[in-house]
Amino acid sequence: MRILVAQLNLIIGDLEGNTQKIIETLDRARTKEVDIVLFPELTISGYPPEDLLLHRSFVDSMEKYLEKIIRASSRLFVVVGVVRRNMGKGEKSLLNSAAVIEDGKLLGFQDKWLLPTYDVFDERRYFEPGTEMNIWKCKGKKVGIIICEDIWQHAGYVDFTKYHRDPVQELEKFKPDVLLNLSASPYQYQKPDVRVKVCMKAAKTLKCPVLLCCQVGGNDQLIFDGYSVYIDKEGQLAQLAKGFEEDEMLVDIEAKTASCPLQYDPLHDLYSALVMGVRDYFHKSGFKKGCLGLSGGIDSALVACIAVDALGKENVLAVAMPSRYSSASSVTDAKEIAAKLGIAYEEMQIEKPFQSFLDLLAPYFEGMAPDTTEENLQARIRGMILMAFSNKFGYVVLSTGNKSEMAMGYCTLYGDMCGGLSVISDVTKTQVYDLARWINRNGEIIPLSTIEKAPSAELRPNQKDSDSLPDYAVVDKVLQSYIEEYLSPEEISKKHGLAIELVLDLVRRIHRAEYKRRQAAPGIRVSKKAFRVGRKYPIVQGWI
Amino acid sequence: MRILVAQLNLIIGDLEGNTQKIIETLDRARTKEVDIVLFPELTISGYPPEDLLLHRSFVDSMEKYLEKIIRASSRLFVVVGVVRRNMGKGEKSLLNSAAVIEDGKLLGFQDKWLLPTYDVFDERRYFEPGTEMNIWKCKGKKVGIIICEDIWQHAGYVDFTKYHRDPVQELEKFKPDVLLNLSASPYQYQKPDVRVKVCMKAAKTLKCPVLLCCQVGGNDQLIFDGYSVYIDKEGQLAQLAKGFEEDEMLVDIEAKTASCPLQYDPLHDLYSALVMGVRDYFHKSGFKKGCLGLSGGIDSALVACIAVDALGKENVLAVAMPSRYSSASSVTDAKEIAAKLGIAYEEMQIEKPFQSFLDLLAPYFEGMAPDTTEENLQARIRGMILMAFSNKFGYVVLSTGNKSEMAMGYCTLYGDMCGGLSVISDVTKTQVYDLARWINRNGEIIPLSTIEKAPSAELRPNQKDSDSLPDYAVVDKVLQSYIEEYLSPEEISKKHGLAIELVLDLVRRIHRAEYKRRQAAPGIRVSKKAFRVGRKYPIVQGWI
Repeated sequence: MRILVAQLNLIIGDLEGNTQKIIETLDRARTKEVDIVLFPELTISGYPPEDLLLHRSFVDSMEKYLEKIIRASSRLFVVVGVVRRNMGKGEKSLLNSAAVIEDGKLLGFQDKWLLPTYDVFDERRYFEPGTEMNIWKCKGKKVGIIICEDIWQHAGYVDFTKYHRDPVQELEKFKPDVLLNLSASPYQYQKPDVRVKVCMKAAKTLKCPVLLCCQVGGNDQLIFDGYSVYIDKEGQLAQLAKGFEEDEMLVDIEAKTASCPLQYDPLHDLYSALVMGVRDYFHKSGFKKGCLGLSGGIDSALVACIAVDALGKENVLAVAMPSRYSSASSVTDAKEIAAKLGIAYEEMQIEKPFQSFLDLLAPYFEGMAPDTTEENLQARIRGMILMAFSNKFGYVVLSTGNKSEMAMGYCTLYGDMCGGLSVISDVTKTQVYDLARWINRNGEIIPLSTIEKAPSAELRPNQKDSDSLPDYAVVDKVLQSYIEEYLSPEEISKKHGLAIELVLDLVRRIHRAEYKRRQAAPGIRVSKKAFRVGRKYPIVQGWI
Repeated sequence: MRILVAQLNLIIGDLEGNTQKIIETLDRARTKEVDIVLFPELTISGYPPEDLLLHRSFVDSMEKYLEKIIRASSRLFVVVGVVRRNMGKGEKSLLNSAAVIEDGKLLGFQDKWLLPTYDVFDERRYFEPGTEMNIWKCKGKKVGIIICEDIWQHAGYVDFTKYHRDPVQELEKFKPDVLLNLSASPYQYQKPDVRVKVCMKAAKTLKCPVLLCCQVGGNDQLIFDGYSVYIDKEGQLAQLAKGFEEDEMLVDIEAKTASCPLQYDPLHDLYSALVMGVRDYFHKSGFKKGCLGLSGGIDSALVACIAVDALGKENVLAVAMPSRYSSASSVTDAKEIAAKLGIAYEEMQIEKPFQSFLDLLAPYFEGMAPDTTEENLQARIRGMILMAFSNKFGYVVLSTGNKSEMAMGYCTLYGDMCGGLSVISDVTKTQVYDLARWINRNGEIIPLSTIEKAPSAELRPNQKDSDSLPDYAVVDKVLQSYIEEYLSPEEISKKHGLAIELVLDLVRRIHRAEYKRRQAAPGIRVSKKAFRVGRKYPIVQGWI
């Protein structure tokens, strides 16, 4: 039995375009003598469609596109992800389903049982959990079909939720010959190795091969890494689809398999996730060109590299905007990076607009010492210049702040935070260094002086980040323990051997900066817990 | 039996402060010979605590504060809202509960059954639905206790969800002598009259008095209007607590009641909601002073009035920032409003920084006609000036865009969208006019010329909003039908007799502006469906 696992990159809500992709896949499948074509979760709408689901006309359209797919399914057994109306009991009016189609006929639906409602997921907002579990017949074989989260509970890899039903266990009584899973599984939180383990566990329990089809691509802040999985009936990883691109994995579940090693470079993957995040954000919304402020520092250097790989060097503009406080070496470094990457580079002094603001405000600020006000003015002038390029020429501004800065509020609202997309806002400063060295692994692209100099915003004479922050290594430890592990300040202090007052200060900064992050550009999510998407905290609060 | 309904204004996560308020209420209750004290939903944490709930130490602390409250409960029967751990079965580890306390002893908990997970609510993210329904005894009377949403299903006033259990019906078998409800019921979506109807329905079914205790106050974007309810056993509204402020409503359920008329002025309430939203956002986070750009237009005039009522005129700074395109009458109007309100007023020409940006960019923009780039520069210079005042003097900037503009994207990112709080971003332009006339009901505060002139951003010569937008009356109709009623463009076209192409154009603009709104300052929610809070749409999407 030959199964085609169609790992597609979909556009949210583009029912017409997504359906066309599905039908083209079916056409190709027929030429390859495929029996079953398996698609990812919510194929027709893309995942996650969010509140588009609340529009009756959106769900109506989806039904019409499903009919088109059914008509295009001749000689195939097709499993495609779709939203359908809940005509039975229950709280919610929709079901997250797999439509099971055979040779032009809809056999029925298998609804998703386990609806993740934590972190970036809010499926209970829209969907009613499925109640029935079916087994499907294709060419004499018994086919089990479940959707994404349905397979995770069985292996015990679910956070924040203990489901009281287990679809994998439920399928045991049917003794399926193969298990199919339609997935939309975001990057990092469920890395390929975890996903593989989860599938192995199901294969062992059901004593049958498992095929898991992942969505791939960037949808706003969420990155889907692909890496669809084939576990053979011995429970071994037999095949893995490509990471970070569309792929069609053709599997013959009767053919002899060899165990396939699970190898991937985590830094390469992180970089690929960021590149795909930028590319899909731009291309899926019809933009080609990006611009960024290149300071000579490591963050903007990294973003420039990502932008080039995502958009092509001919589509990237770097602008260096030195002020009276910028060191000469910063401008040299910026120019060198731009030259190495072969991107357009402009340089303009911000002194004149800066001085004009100082003059305008002087009567009001008389007798007051310079402070962050004047620092922010410089960052905001730079933001304005980039936005002017964006407005005039259609560049999307790439914002370059990292996660450690975003956590601490070490960034200027309407200044360096300007942008259509925040490329590395979920990448800690520690990871920024790791990625820079990884980029330089075959030769220097990011100048060593950029990597080695002490981090500085250069907004006042001789400023260093370390004037107002502890070492980023310390910040990042606290960050991870507080944001991802939910440890208390006391526990963090003990775990990392840090003074409790230091930890409390950092945790307070994280909460205080919530108001800034609320207005940040959307950032590409690559960690277990990103700011904004999947993380909901009050701005005004009295806890910490 | 005397019941004190304690309508409190709480700070999210301020367990210490909220507990102190609770204990002070108990102290006062004892002096008034009260039998039962009823508090709002999640009293100790405030509602909604959001992801603070995921911190183990947060839940631990709440347990300690509950113990404090128990110790302070002597001679009283106390019903207080608290989060507790779910030690039983189920998916989630927490329960949204009422702790039932009598004279220093915890009698037990009543858990919330119906967990709203739609619009601004996401209770399934944290909580497991309650499974048991208890009846409580106080001084020989049978007391039913349920929480917020638990009472709504029975009257059929729930959106997006059909619960399959009905706590009110479940209580019928106990024949309660009184029903108590702990609520945190946001303004508008559940206006006082709907809330009263819901309580009446429960009173009729259970043939007993109903007391519903509401949280009051602004928590970030959410406004809780108060108006706690007492329905007597005949099912008549007998007493209503104050709207938009803390109140203690003392009810003797055996005393004879007279029917109390339900009267409120919707415009007055809308204005009060905005005032409370500003005041609580500032005061709960320790800020006193607000500043805003006063353009001479109606939006900023309205925000200035709200700011004065929220913060006191001595704490409001208005800044007029005319450009080469500003009409003389705009500045005159701005000055007049500031004078009438008695607020500090500064005026500064933005010509010099504007010209310095034009000069800086001239070599790059050579030969290109002026467009929105130059318009946005002006808006952004104004934003920078306000932010400089904010940084230097500690003002929080109040942003003044209305909902119709936010819907259409008729606003400048990092320009007029700058601010800590967006005061009227959930108020349509139609409502802005209504409120302005309401403010002038006893004499002109907002100049007539401000109300009557055609809306203009004054960012290019003789610009009018109507150059790029249809009438706001049309925009607002489409807005409501699309955003609140989820009608399709075809349905909207038919309902309002508008050309389908016009409707489609407006709906497309709503989706296209999603990226701007994602970076907008948090806005005070006063409508059934506000942008951002309670509304989740993809930025990159291909539906419309």
